[in-house]
Amino acid sequence: MALIVQKFGGTSVATPDKIKAVARRVLGYKQQGHQMVVVLSAMAGETNKLVDFANQMQEIPDQREMDVLLSSGEQVTVSLFAMAVKEAGFNAVSLLGDQVRILTDDLHTKARIKKVETETIRRALAEDKVVVVAGFQGVTETGEITTLGRGGSDTTAVALAAALEADQCEIFTDVDGVYTTDPNIYGKARKIKKISYDEMLELASLGAKVLDIRSVGLAKRYNVPVHVRSTFTDEEGTWVVKEDKSMESMLVSGVTYNKNEARITLSKVQDTPGIASRIFTPISDAGINVDMIIQNTRAGDLTDLTFTVPRSDFKRAMQIVEKIGSEIGAERVTGSDDIAKVSIVGVGMRNHSGVATTMFHTLAREGINILMISTSEIKISCIVEEKYTELAIRALHDAFALDQEPVEEEL
Amino acid sequence: MALIVQKFGGTSVATPDKIKAVARRVLGYKQQGHQMVVVLSAMAGETNKLVDFANQMQEIPDQREMDVLLSSGEQVTVSLFAMAVKEAGFNAVSLLGDQVRILTDDLHTKARIKKVETETIRRALAEDKVVVVAGFQGVTETGEITTLGRGGSDTTAVALAAALEADQCEIFTDVDGVYTTDPNIYGKARKIKKISYDEMLELASLGAKVLDIRSVGLAKRYNVPVHVRSTFTDEEGTWVVKEDKSMESMLVSGVTYNKNEARITLSKVQDTPGIASRIFTPISDAGINVDMIIQNTRAGDLTDLTFTVPRSDFKRAMQIVEKIGSEIGAERVTGSDDIAKVSIVGVGMRNHSGVATTMFHTLAREGINILMISTSEIKISCIVEEKYTELAIRALHDAFALDQEPVEEEL
Repeated sequence: MALIVQKFGGTSVATPDKIKAVARRVLGYKQQGHQMVVVLSAMAGETNKLVDFANQMQEIPDQREMDVLLSSGEQVTVSLFAMAVKEAGFNAVSLLGDQVRILTDDLHTKARIKKVETETIRRALAEDKVVVVAGFQGVTETGEITTLGRGGSDTTAVALAAALEADQCEIFTDVDGVYTTDPNIYGKARKIKKISYDEMLELASLGAKVLDIRSVGLAKRYNVPVHVRSTFTDEEGTWVVKEDKSMESMLVSGVTYNKNEARITLSKVQDTPGIASRIFTPISDAGINVDMIIQNTRAGDLTDLTFTVPRSDFKRAMQIVEKIGSEIGAERVTGSDDIAKVSIVGVGMRNHSGVATTMFHTLAREGINILMISTSEIKISCIVEEKYTELAIRALHDAFALDQEPVEEEL
Repeated sequence: MALIVQKFGGTSVATPDKIKAVARRVLGYKQQGHQMVVVLSAMAGETNKLVDFANQMQEIPDQREMDVLLSSGEQVTVSLFAMAVKEAGFNAVSLLGDQVRILTDDLHTKARIKKVETETIRRALAEDKVVVVAGFQGVTETGEITTLGRGGSDTTAVALAAALEADQCEIFTDVDGVYTTDPNIYGKARKIKKISYDEMLELASLGAKVLDIRSVGLAKRYNVPVHVRSTFTDEEGTWVVKEDKSMESMLVSGVTYNKNEARITLSKVQDTPGIASRIFTPISDAGINVDMIIQNTRAGDLTDLTFTVPRSDFKRAMQIVEKIGSEIGAERVTGSDDIAKVSIVGVGMRNHSGVATTMFHTLAREGINILMISTSEIKISCIVEEKYTELAIRALHDAFALDQEPVEEEL
């Protein structure tokens, strides 16, 4: 008998019939003798409807009231789900964030979990109940309702699994796992059976939107094995787990991309102390996040400085940088938003040289010019012209033989 | 500066635009310097939608989960309302049943308020906030969400007014007050400016669905003056208040009717001790409420027994009574569901004889046969054939000159 936490997203509980189907699935586990804790999101579309209402009320909706508003969505799904379980002849109880006592800080609409109390859940499990917890929501010490931000239900599930020391945490979603790359771009993409937390973090932040990135960090911290899988099939999905030996044999686990960045270059800037601060302070003051920064030394005391910003902030960032550029006597400010970031991720590259060389060689062979490079311990990213994105992905996927099941991989 | 509690029903907050309109109205009072506590229902139609979902889940939806489900409705309106107030430049805070701490018993879906804590509301009022309270919902000592049943928001408003010792409690609804009779039946119906709690209780239970009957009882108990009025006009509505001298001068305050009853007669029953119990116990065991009961003595030791039941239970009741009838040797069991109860209500009749006579005389003059009569201190009800309902109402309205504003009435 295991204690299993299962989370189902908004598309899985979008209608009364879908809620019943999910309840049947959960009861399959219950009938095998497992203790079940189910975390649910709001019905798909419901949150957007409520946000739309809020925007009709207030130009910038009050964050505290937004949380009161949005947390109503999960209240509907968990109570309906508990009814469906009861109708099937089992016992169940729904619990809201403040009833479990999922304690958070008071950063409304993006609160962080501080503590999960487990007494109420444990008592309900001891009474043989299926425990149905509202995802996405928590409560402050003073009884204010908070929400954890989009994707917060994943975090709720992982936090509950950690606090309850669950044997297993399963995230059911509308995709069936994490792939070596976007299957829409390359048909040879292969579902990954097992991936490390760190690789998942790099993939998530790069755009593989299978699992909320905060939940991966939490799972890593408390060493919770997370199984990401499809609501609509019985197939195994992808296990996100602690790094193990077998993973190291894979040089690269996946190829990912991001088309949401734009690039800005300041040419021939005086390379004096404090110049970077002079440039980046007003950008950060404007609330714009800078991602990659590269500085090339030129002859003399001149330097070229290139960096990327979110594409949605590109115009605003250009205005700021053009102003600074003229103030500090840069020769030129140029920018383009038709770029893409292509990255390879893998814990194996930590112990193997030559991965970067293979990447650069592969791109060169396809005639793809690399505009910027940045690396971390388990990731190499190249900025290329946007039009080459798909070509680069396919070439890299082939170069690292990602369509091949790794021989050593076993769960 | 007064402390005013205002309640707005589901049709008043049915859309974002309507919520904004109501917020503007409330802020009109706020700008006059009043402390405002606003109680809201769920958006019209929302509760029905949720009940429909629940019925898809479970044949008899679990009551505890029903309360979790239904209480989400007010959560939406109160948070949106608070946003609208803030957008207008005022401060506001929404509070759910468990945040105010409206403590109830644990009779889910029809809980009774045991205590209203006022500290949180008072603190918010002291901070110059418009306090927006979710109607219809409460919480048990152990943190379970409860609801007060249909019309429960009226009760929330009156309970808050009582606990806060508010100067005024206003119930905004889609009618503009209480009328001397149904204006759809008789165009001469006049809006009553002031009515006693007891009269309102009689009118409410008889079908004048302006104000939830439990809220009237509560208002009477704590002597809270309640102003029932329209959301859509600025006109004064009807004040429901403690009985005063001026009311006594009016013999009759209103004429009301109820078409939801049916009549059953047992003829020639042996008039022995225990016979009534023998007849009514199985009916009450079947969950059927008996309203009027009349026993006529016949010659000898035989009696006729007539009573009314809700029309929806008529067939079931007939089956039960036919069975009993043959067991106890009644000559005949007859029944009809084409009856109506017409009643006159007024505290003045307590001290004036002749009111009943006038009623009977009026009906007789119109050729309306009275099938049953029952009286209370401030009410006389006659069962008549259903087809005479409207005629009876108009005749009685004229007979007691209800279209005339009472001279002595003043607020």
